[in-house]
Amino acid sequence: MRIDIISVVPSLLESPFSHSILKRAIQKGLVEVVLHNLHDYGFGGYKQVDDYPFGGGAGMVMMIEPIDRCLSALKAERNYDEIIYLTPDGERFTQKIANELSLKNNLILLCGHYKGVDERVREHLITREMSIGDYVLSGGELAAAVVADAVIRLIPGVLSDETSALTDSFQDNLLAPPVYTRPEEYKGWKVPEILLSGNHKAIEEWRWEQSLERTRQKRPDLLKNFW
Amino acid sequence: MRIDIISVVPSLLESPFSHSILKRAIQKGLVEVVLHNLHDYGFGGYKQVDDYPFGGGAGMVMMIEPIDRCLSALKAERNYDEIIYLTPDGERFTQKIANELSLKNNLILLCGHYKGVDERVREHLITREMSIGDYVLSGGELAAAVVADAVIRLIPGVLSDETSALTDSFQDNLLAPPVYTRPEEYKGWKVPEILLSGNHKAIEEWRWEQSLERTRQKRPDLLKNFW
Repeated sequence: MRIDIISVVPSLLESPFSHSILKRAIQKGLVEVVLHNLHDYGFGGYKQVDDYPFGGGAGMVMMIEPIDRCLSALKAERNYDEIIYLTPDGERFTQKIANELSLKNNLILLCGHYKGVDERVREHLITREMSIGDYVLSGGELAAAVVADAVIRLIPGVLSDETSALTDSFQDNLLAPPVYTRPEEYKGWKVPEILLSGNHKAIEEWRWEQSLERTRQKRPDLLKNFW
Repeated sequence: MRIDIISVVPSLLESPFSHSILKRAIQKGLVEVVLHNLHDYGFGGYKQVDDYPFGGGAGMVMMIEPIDRCLSALKAERNYDEIIYLTPDGERFTQKIANELSLKNNLILLCGHYKGVDERVREHLITREMSIGDYVLSGGELAAAVVADAVIRLIPGVLSDETSALTDSFQDNLLAPPVYTRPEEYKGWKVPEILLSGNHKAIEEWRWEQSLERTRQKRPDLLKNFW
């Protein structure tokens, strides 16, 4: 898989992709992540990419032309499955969408900044709009990193233990059960005895009940999709 | 405001805090962000912070003791308003919570990694659990960056134009209206004429209607909280 990320501050994204799981996925050749500086397609000596909004008001707006040029250059090289604009009013990104995107070959993630992009970009140049949650960030960069991370870790071979992602929260519409590790007792707080029993069948049952109970308490909405 | 972030890979978070708005907020002294390496509180030559889960199964679990030591060291220095554990099954982070947290003095963000933290950490050592959305990330680091970014940009003085954050999506439970900038026409795609009219009252009305209409179409759930 290849992911191209277009941003006015691509260097903001350097460290998330150069550590831990994402770094290893890139090193193993399972995914290629290419950061593009939109200023390379900007105007004049300042490589301008934004301008004042028509009709007045606060904040700057990203111009359509540099974005169009950058997208055109990429699309001339290969076919893209999706060109995704990250925006708080987009479709809500979920684990289901992460699963779906993890099967694609080439994705473009376009990061908004300032007040966002000229509306004509959204109408004509992208295929999908996505939001990682109901809050506003200073730019789409962290949203792009979140989407890329959630997608990349699902690519087979990225996680060292393939069963690891399958037992995560949401993969079966249930929250994950509680986990414990050593020591058995810490400051008087004990690990549930069943986990020390060695009875694997009983442990699996307990985990299933805990998942269900936790989902019932914290996120009953998930169970509607489950039954 | 001071934000302490505890992670097993703190360097993953370096670039988001050293660019753009977050960088300027730190430089202006409006916020202090301190990254802590949990391994500094780990065991033995390898500075071990995780171990196998009791009861078997895939993935590693973060041990309670290094986390307790790190939190104790921080709490000995100052009072914290919240100790927040980032986890997919936590309370859903929203713009409302970002507003609330932006008024606090000292926050700790604890990033999970691997299969998460020993359940006793959640029961005894933290004050709040938070999720940035219904998807699983390779660690809590990007979630911590998202929460910090959403909160920091709301601190007065961080954004150069204070009205800028107030007109964002969600601040009034409405999505933001479309924005346009130069050129007036691009490849035959035109800016709505009203925005070029110079009639500020009419422009404000148009924007309000667009916000309402866009919210109705894309996120009718937000209007329930609005009326």
